[in-house]
Amino acid sequence: MGIITVGREFGSGGRELGKRLADALNYAYYDQEIIDEIVKNMQLSHKYVENILHEGVMPSFSYRFGNTFYTPYPVVQGTVDVLVEQQKVIKEIAQKGNCIIVGKSANVILKDLKTLDLFVYADLSSKIKRCQERAPEGENFSEKELKKRIKQIDARRSRFQEALTDLKWGAKEGYHLCINTSGFEIKALIPFIAEYATRWFDLK
Amino acid sequence: MGIITVGREFGSGGRELGKRLADALNYAYYDQEIIDEIVKNMQLSHKYVENILHEGVMPSFSYRFGNTFYTPYPVVQGTVDVLVEQQKVIKEIAQKGNCIIVGKSANVILKDLKTLDLFVYADLSSKIKRCQERAPEGENFSEKELKKRIKQIDARRSRFQEALTDLKWGAKEGYHLCINTSGFEIKALIPFIAEYATRWFDLK
Repeated sequence: MGIITVGREFGSGGRELGKRLADALNYAYYDQEIIDEIVKNMQLSHKYVENILHEGVMPSFSYRFGNTFYTPYPVVQGTVDVLVEQQKVIKEIAQKGNCIIVGKSANVILKDLKTLDLFVYADLSSKIKRCQERAPEGENFSEKELKKRIKQIDARRSRFQEALTDLKWGAKEGYHLCINTSGFEIKALIPFIAEYATRWFDLK
Repeated sequence: MGIITVGREFGSGGRELGKRLADALNYAYYDQEIIDEIVKNMQLSHKYVENILHEGVMPSFSYRFGNTFYTPYPVVQGTVDVLVEQQKVIKEIAQKGNCIIVGKSANVILKDLKTLDLFVYADLSSKIKRCQERAPEGENFSEKELKKRIKQIDARRSRFQEALTDLKWGAKEGYHLCINTSGFEIKALIPFIAEYATRWFDLK
């Protein structure tokens, strides 16, 4: 059985790579689907879970000062609960069969399985260009804003991983293959990665 | 024309990978040959050049104190001369046709060409195991000594690169593909890397 995890820098095309690779190998693909599952299992709002996992911001508990002594416990606990559920969901997915899981430090969460762990990265100008080309209609970040956004999102990913392990997010030591997509069409990279993955699972 | 550079951690099997890849692709292979060329061009002893490039130690100039005021100039100049000649040799090799160059920060030296830059790495226990298996007869380093040796050699490689560029040796940003060989027979990795290289040069 083959499980491929794909870590990626924001804007590097890792998500597209994961999706296309899943198509090429006929593997199940999990990304957003993991959030849907958490939402269902925990009976929380989609926005609440997404806020925690995608934005790294605290959900809308009201912070009260003055008369009420403030304790951050519910906020912290809410975050921890979602992270614990995410691990559970990812471990369940891994039991189901061949699949590709994008992001969420799945390489760390599934470290006891023989997963193939990829990391996708690119130079900053390629990432900015990619974000600009793929911007949804109406979104119009300046280059400076995009730089900031890329930095923030990757910092959050890195921070989440830190909660799980000493292994640094994006450090090559945590992956089997690190792929620089600068100047590439993701599509063009798929055949050889598919070939690698197939051989990898044959060997393991 | 295809030029592939292979950076590698000591003990990761990068040299074997480079050699086997050269055979698979029918490319010329350069590693030790670069030292031979420097020796010939500069009319220096093999040992002198090797000391500088492989061991990172200063050659046998006598250090005199006492009456004579010591200046390190000749030592420094000797090192710089060899490094400059090495760059020249590598640039000449790159003009000759399809080839694989192992080590020597060739990715940095040839940064203006469309080289394919690989980096080969492994976890420490795999590297130690590899060193033990490949030790020449009579060499019998303890695990502790091997750890130290691996650290020293990689630190020297890193230091040499620092003299050329801000790009950190072994940091994935300086390469197109980083390959973790832990637990692999190098031989088994060759077909897919050859496939990747062929596609890469087709696309460029």
